[in-house]
Amino acid sequence: MAKRTGSGPATAESMATKQRDIAVSEFFLKNRHLLGFDSPRRALLTAVKEAVDNSLDACEEAGVLPEVAVELEQIADNRFRVTVTDNGPGIVKNQIPKIFAKLLYGSKFHRLRMSRGQQGIGISAAGMYGQLTTGAATRILSRIKNAKKAHSLAVQIDTKQNKPAILRDTEQDWHPTFQAVDAAGEPDGPPVVSKHGTSVSIEMEAAYQRGKQSVDEFVKQCAIVNPHLTLHYRLALQTKTEPADAKPEPATKSQPAKKPAPSQPVALAAKPGITAITYHRAVKVMPKIPDEILPHPHGVELGLLMQMLKDTESRTVRSALSNDFSRVSAQTALDVCTRAGIDPKTNPTRIAHHESEALYKAIQDTKLMRPPTDCLSPIGEAQILAGLQKEIAADFFTAVTRDPAVYRGNPFQIEIGLAFARPQENEGVGIEEPVRVLRFANRVPLLYQAGACAMTRGVIGVNWKSYGLSQPKDALPIGPVVVLVHLASVWVPFTSESKDAIASYAEIIDELTLGLQECGRRLAVFLHKRHRELEAARKRNYMELYIPHLALGLKNILGLTDKEEHKVVGNLKKMLEKTHLDV
Amino acid sequence: MAKRTGSGPATAESMATKQRDIAVSEFFLKNRHLLGFDSPRRALLTAVKEAVDNSLDACEEAGVLPEVAVELEQIADNRFRVTVTDNGPGIVKNQIPKIFAKLLYGSKFHRLRMSRGQQGIGISAAGMYGQLTTGAATRILSRIKNAKKAHSLAVQIDTKQNKPAILRDTEQDWHPTFQAVDAAGEPDGPPVVSKHGTSVSIEMEAAYQRGKQSVDEFVKQCAIVNPHLTLHYRLALQTKTEPADAKPEPATKSQPAKKPAPSQPVALAAKPGITAITYHRAVKVMPKIPDEILPHPHGVELGLLMQMLKDTESRTVRSALSNDFSRVSAQTALDVCTRAGIDPKTNPTRIAHHESEALYKAIQDTKLMRPPTDCLSPIGEAQILAGLQKEIAADFFTAVTRDPAVYRGNPFQIEIGLAFARPQENEGVGIEEPVRVLRFANRVPLLYQAGACAMTRGVIGVNWKSYGLSQPKDALPIGPVVVLVHLASVWVPFTSESKDAIASYAEIIDELTLGLQECGRRLAVFLHKRHRELEAARKRNYMELYIPHLALGLKNILGLTDKEEHKVVGNLKKMLEKTHLDV
Repeated sequence: MAKRTGSGPATAESMATKQRDIAVSEFFLKNRHLLGFDSPRRALLTAVKEAVDNSLDACEEAGVLPEVAVELEQIADNRFRVTVTDNGPGIVKNQIPKIFAKLLYGSKFHRLRMSRGQQGIGISAAGMYGQLTTGAATRILSRIKNAKKAHSLAVQIDTKQNKPAILRDTEQDWHPTFQAVDAAGEPDGPPVVSKHGTSVSIEMEAAYQRGKQSVDEFVKQCAIVNPHLTLHYRLALQTKTEPADAKPEPATKSQPAKKPAPSQPVALAAKPGITAITYHRAVKVMPKIPDEILPHPHGVELGLLMQMLKDTESRTVRSALSNDFSRVSAQTALDVCTRAGIDPKTNPTRIAHHESEALYKAIQDTKLMRPPTDCLSPIGEAQILAGLQKEIAADFFTAVTRDPAVYRGNPFQIEIGLAFARPQENEGVGIEEPVRVLRFANRVPLLYQAGACAMTRGVIGVNWKSYGLSQPKDALPIGPVVVLVHLASVWVPFTSESKDAIASYAEIIDELTLGLQECGRRLAVFLHKRHRELEAARKRNYMELYIPHLALGLKNILGLTDKEEHKVVGNLKKMLEKTHLDV
Repeated sequence: MAKRTGSGPATAESMATKQRDIAVSEFFLKNRHLLGFDSPRRALLTAVKEAVDNSLDACEEAGVLPEVAVELEQIADNRFRVTVTDNGPGIVKNQIPKIFAKLLYGSKFHRLRMSRGQQGIGISAAGMYGQLTTGAATRILSRIKNAKKAHSLAVQIDTKQNKPAILRDTEQDWHPTFQAVDAAGEPDGPPVVSKHGTSVSIEMEAAYQRGKQSVDEFVKQCAIVNPHLTLHYRLALQTKTEPADAKPEPATKSQPAKKPAPSQPVALAAKPGITAITYHRAVKVMPKIPDEILPHPHGVELGLLMQMLKDTESRTVRSALSNDFSRVSAQTALDVCTRAGIDPKTNPTRIAHHESEALYKAIQDTKLMRPPTDCLSPIGEAQILAGLQKEIAADFFTAVTRDPAVYRGNPFQIEIGLAFARPQENEGVGIEEPVRVLRFANRVPLLYQAGACAMTRGVIGVNWKSYGLSQPKDALPIGPVVVLVHLASVWVPFTSESKDAIASYAEIIDELTLGLQECGRRLAVFLHKRHRELEAARKRNYMELYIPHLALGLKNILGLTDKEEHKVVGNLKKMLEKTHLDV
């Protein structure tokens, strides 16, 4: 029973010998729930999400209309192979090991630019989780434009040092190839071959389960908010050998296979356990490539300002201010220096602590234009409506794209979509159910940690009773409503590394509230009108029921003929219709 | 308007030039909300918490009864100096910079042992936040046993490299000194001087606010679950110059200052804005120093097993299994090897992938003793009751310490305390209020992210209606009840680096539920008895009201004398009392 028992009290000296570095990979290996790998089911989703994020970012950055294939193959009871292939620009060979097998490495962290990835952790973390649970390496195929061959690598993380270990490094003939399928899951046209792209494949302990937090739902929501994306999804589950009579009947020509609604995953009749679906792009225009921006002075803390002045390439404080920050003109920089009592020609690297403090204070006291907001690429009201209409059967749709706003110096923009759905035609929506909230950040669906998310808090915080929905205290409103919420920002403030929920900055909550209220008002108008119409129809039905009796009574009293009675019925109906219009 | 605009689509080559390393300190600087530094108020609490955690861990590891002073000094409108001083073993000089100015450095991460700190991030993160918001360095004074002088250092983090920068390094005469105060905040006895200890001081942007998430509450709860701790708390707020007539009246000898209840912070009459309080230790015995344990084989994944076999110092697979894991005897190790079809004398560093898989499977298929649980140091039922009774005015107290259990190979233990409080005598408790849940992990109070915590989920998940409390759907029960929940574990699965909430592992939820149900049943017995007593008293009052009228009636009918009437009243009352006993 080996055990390192405590050998009496420690001393400062004995404790010192135990202090050591902790590699960030060791840290996240032990805390992998922080990255979204806490359960086999969530791990599957997180791996897909990180890979798809990277693919879409790369395609958009390179100006390529994205085509992405997501394949999940079950290779043992609790083991899957996840493969994501894109038609992006590919990755130059010497970058592949670090991108896929080193945490905190990437191109997106040190810039302020709207993108899906921002941390340089995700895909390496997925590989590390695969390695931990199966011992297998991450396999990458990548071909860049005009390259003769594709690179084929197998890499692992040396978790003690957070460094990649290359297990295989070869070249081979390979082109990313995509096969669309039709509603029955059968090939739909010839395969599409790209001249460049990347494919990553990770084997991991995982579990597949349908539902609101499934990969199925993720790819579907991806298609809603990325109308320029063609996405192929294929799920191959292991099938248990079933008794002969339980096997699905093969489709024959006389009995054609039923074609389900287009967007529902369908099982290929020929191969049990296989589900395949293609979400075709709805538009052939790329979203605007977002600009990178410089930090806004009002979002920069004193310590960061000091660091920036130390690191600047500018030779004077004045030029440092105007070159390294957004919204600071040469004149404004001069004003700030004057206000701070600092010679604008001072070398910024030689500024003293109290001078930085004065400068910081002067910046806070100076009115500046808000950060530029053309760096944001919202989905847009029309696209949100189109996306919702494609996926949800509803009687009422509306969408709002708010003007950009700013939190902690970072521009962001809120978009809201709302649908009043027909409960019987939509899964997960009901008259007695809480409204369904679809959450997105920089066009990425967020499926976990709804309770911790500012978006959920925003929906709960609105008084929906005044818009015609019932709402329990401190809870989501009740009704057959789907609310889509999108946050676009150059830096999304996630509450954890797994990037599932947005932190509740007051500015974000405010914008959410205003957007939701606008949609709520429009919903109220619709519900009010619908209520009036239903009420009028009810009254009218009621009256109509009695018109013949009334006419018969009049006929008896006044001695009308059948023809006259008929005329009376007609007149009464006309009157009723007129009254109805005046209701 | 400087702005680095996107210059057209990127290529694989242009993207490669932008890839770079991200220092873990840069990562957490930008994501500081992950560490609990997202608002000035929370930052203050997080800094205190991290410093106190370190102090208590160090004292306990060195076998010193801890005495800790927490001082908050407001030095500007939105700026505080946080100083925490302990009588611990001190820190050897060359370790000080790394411990206080390098993230992911420490002695607690690479072991399985119950302690407050475990990540090697906390105190350096507090210093980094101070540096970011004020530009100031972290100042440390530390004296180890038998040292002539104390070391005095000022350090900062070089955030681009996650390395400490030493700004000052001197020696000086210093001894940690503690001054107890009485209920009026006046010095209570001579100061206590320790021969060793550490003091850390951080200047930071912060805000102080009373309430459930305040430092006041944190130190109070610390005292509840650490009865061996003496804790001095001093808060000095800047006072605004008030108009003369608004100034507090000075206490004179003829008008002594009111002495509030012992545990409520009090303002020193002499110095407005200053609050001081001492929580004296209730016991002079140290809690048992917890043992360090080895990993349990059933909690180790395949990838980790492969890594451990690669790193082992043992020469054979058999000895690696029995030396590096808990609960694996030499015989069990032999059994596992046989089951896996591996020669037990194989060199563990030369084992092939498929052999590790076989070994992993064999381990899973082998029955093993559960992990040792003497590594846990629970608070204990008696101490929990004492702690609750000291701080809460209530009519009923109970406590349960569950037997240890295991999640993912890690031993843990749940403790529950429950008090049925008198609403008028306790803040934050009410008949119509949700029950108050005090959460603790390894004796550290958790004040934030209650909604995301397994402990809250556990309380919500219990059916409290069957124990006599009302409970809305999916919500905390309602009533004047305080529930204390403690999780002790060699590795606490926090949901984020800020260590405020526990992840919802099924095994943890199960144990919480069982402990809460036990306390619930005891509460039900108390409430039922109280209800019966109240009911009986009500009936009796009702009867007593009519006894004189009854006697008067009898008197008139039977012609009784006054004396006889008096006797009848007495008899009736006696009968009533007898009946009451039989109710």
